[in-house]
Amino acid sequence: MQPIHLMDSAIEALERRMSAMPPVAAMQVRVEGLAEHGGLCLHAPLAANVNDKGCAFGGSLAGLMTLACWGSVTLALERAGLGAAEVFVQDSSIEYLTPLYEDLRAEARLEPGQDWTGLVRAFRERGRARARLAASIRSRDGTLAARLDGRFVALARS
Amino acid sequence: MQPIHLMDSAIEALERRMSAMPPVAAMQVRVEGLAEHGGLCLHAPLAANVNDKGCAFGGSLAGLMTLACWGSVTLALERAGLGAAEVFVQDSSIEYLTPLYEDLRAEARLEPGQDWTGLVRAFRERGRARARLAASIRSRDGTLAARLDGRFVALARS
Repeated sequence: MQPIHLMDSAIEALERRMSAMPPVAAMQVRVEGLAEHGGLCLHAPLAANVNDKGCAFGGSLAGLMTLACWGSVTLALERAGLGAAEVFVQDSSIEYLTPLYEDLRAEARLEPGQDWTGLVRAFRERGRARARLAASIRSRDGTLAARLDGRFVALARS
Repeated sequence: MQPIHLMDSAIEALERRMSAMPPVAAMQVRVEGLAEHGGLCLHAPLAANVNDKGCAFGGSLAGLMTLACWGSVTLALERAGLGAAEVFVQDSSIEYLTPLYEDLRAEARLEPGQDWTGLVRAFRERGRARARLAASIRSRDGTLAARLDGRFVALARS
C-alpha cells in the first residue's frame, strides 16, 4: 500500500506535536503521508534507530508502530474538529519477524470491522472512543519486519 | 524488589554496549543494578522520554522494558563466559496501566518455571536458547505503570 502524499495543515500540526516529544525527536520521525484507508505512514532513519547488530532497535520498531497508530486516531479526530481529544495506548502485541537493515517505515490501519466515521461518532456522542489498530513495518522488498496490534482509547481532555 | 547495586565489569560492559546504540543513548538509559533474581534494573529520566501529555512516552516504556529483558539474557550468558551470543526479542505483549509522571525504572525477570542455569546450559549444549521474560515499570509509590511479557532467543554469533 503506497501512502498518499497528502500533507494538509492537520498532518503538519501532528508532525510538529510529535517532534515536540524528545524521544520522538531523537528517533527523527517524520510523517510520510496518509494511506487511502486513513492510516498514517511514518518514517524514521535507520542511523538514529540502530542497535548493536546494525539493524533496527526493537524499541524503535515498537515506538514507531505505536506512534503511527496513536497519530492515526489523533488525526482522524482532529480532522473532524475534535482536537480536544487525548489519545492513549492501552495495550499491544508485537511480533518481530525479520531484522530490518534499512530505514523504518510504519503504516497503521484500523482493524477490520471498524471505521473512522464510527470512531468519530462514538467520541462525539460519549466523549470517549475505543479503537483496535494494527501497524506494520516492511522493508522495501515487502518483507514484513515487525507488526503490532493494539488497543487505543480517546478521551475528552479534562 | 530493590535492586542490588552490584556493578561488575560485565554490567559496565553491557552499559557501554547499550549506550553505543543511538536510540538508547537518546533515552539516556543507565543500569541501576541487578536484582536478586538475576534480572536487570534500568533507569531513564522522564525529561528525555516525555510525551505531549507530560508523562512517559509509550514507546520509551516499551523500549526500556524490552531492553531490560534483552540485557538480562545478554548479561547471564556473558557472565557464564558465553559472550558470543546474539540476543533477539521475538514477540511481546505490553499493558499500559497508569500514566507515569516520573523517571522510568524497569525491572526484568525470568517468567516462573525457568532459571538462568537452564538457559546457560541450553545455550552451551545447542548454541541457542529461548527464554520468556517479564518486565515492569512502577512509580516510586509502587503503582504499576506498564508491564511486558516477551519471548527472547539467544543465538551463537555466526
